[in-house]
Amino acid sequence: MILPWSLARSRTEIENRIFTLKTRTHISPRTGREHEFYVLEADDWVNVVPLTPEGQVLLVRQFRHATREVTIEIPGGLIEAGQTPEEAAARELLEETGYAAAELTCLGRVRPNPAILTNWCYTFLARDVFQVSQIQNNETEELELVKLGLDRIEEMIFSGEIDHALVLSAFVHFYLHQKSGA
Amino acid sequence: MILPWSLARSRTEIENRIFTLKTRTHISPRTGREHEFYVLEADDWVNVVPLTPEGQVLLVRQFRHATREVTIEIPGGLIEAGQTPEEAAARELLEETGYAAAELTCLGRVRPNPAILTNWCYTFLARDVFQVSQIQNNETEELELVKLGLDRIEEMIFSGEIDHALVLSAFVHFYLHQKSGA
Repeated sequence: MILPWSLARSRTEIENRIFTLKTRTHISPRTGREHEFYVLEADDWVNVVPLTPEGQVLLVRQFRHATREVTIEIPGGLIEAGQTPEEAAARELLEETGYAAAELTCLGRVRPNPAILTNWCYTFLARDVFQVSQIQNNETEELELVKLGLDRIEEMIFSGEIDHALVLSAFVHFYLHQKSGA
Repeated sequence: MILPWSLARSRTEIENRIFTLKTRTHISPRTGREHEFYVLEADDWVNVVPLTPEGQVLLVRQFRHATREVTIEIPGGLIEAGQTPEEAAARELLEETGYAAAELTCLGRVRPNPAILTNWCYTFLARDVFQVSQIQNNETEELELVKLGLDRIEEMIFSGEIDHALVLSAFVHFYLHQKSGA
């Protein structure tokens, strides 16, 4: 049986807008000895599968600063303090695509990386989205809207053109939700 | 059209076994102005979908130090310096499950998080795995083997019992690979 380790203490190494890097000292349940682990404490994230009445999915093209690549992803981002995951989903959908949805359904949530990141990423389905404004680009975020059919998305995941792990995870939940008939 | 930002300079903030945290100064292609972004430079990762001749999948139960939870995942880890992704997949499979495979097939690769992580995670399929030794637990890693049918894995993803984004991503590639008949 796998036993949890207990937390002896934790020390903040560096703090920024996206995460706080900490060194945590955990105690082994088997040996009683202490070991240090680096973890990134982060607020929860959210992403959205926005479906148009015609069955197309809204995606966004954007430049990502770690991989230095232009990616194709579904809209998403940080859940801000005081926001519910659903409110953040509606806000990100509007900011990043200019679209809104009458209803948002939570499809599930994933751990982006339970070894180094403390947070969750929630996935919402936004059915029958409709345009209400333009994409709200700013100085550091520039996005471009892409509409694709579900078949094309599968092809692009298979070929590697869509490769963001959190986007793939969102589609697993979407496919299983469709399969369940909910 | 989304244009890439150019790199002005980069500064190392902190370095550890898992990643190097850097502050990168990137120049906006639209305004020419500089902005700072935090990125985690990390070596590539690998994970493996190990299938027994009976069609069961080998998974591992382990304690994860960021979320402080016991997870169920497929085997995987860091690709060590000088190793190919395939060699790392074979090594992780053996260390974490005690099983080996006659053949490993690369199913695809994903970006764990293109906004903050620079690396790839490769997914391999290991067909007809067979036991050759025991799990190699050490002072900081303790794993337990779990064998599950593919139907049960789908249920556990749907229910949230399996929630690691990189595990879900691996199964998307696995499902699409099966669907393609390859």
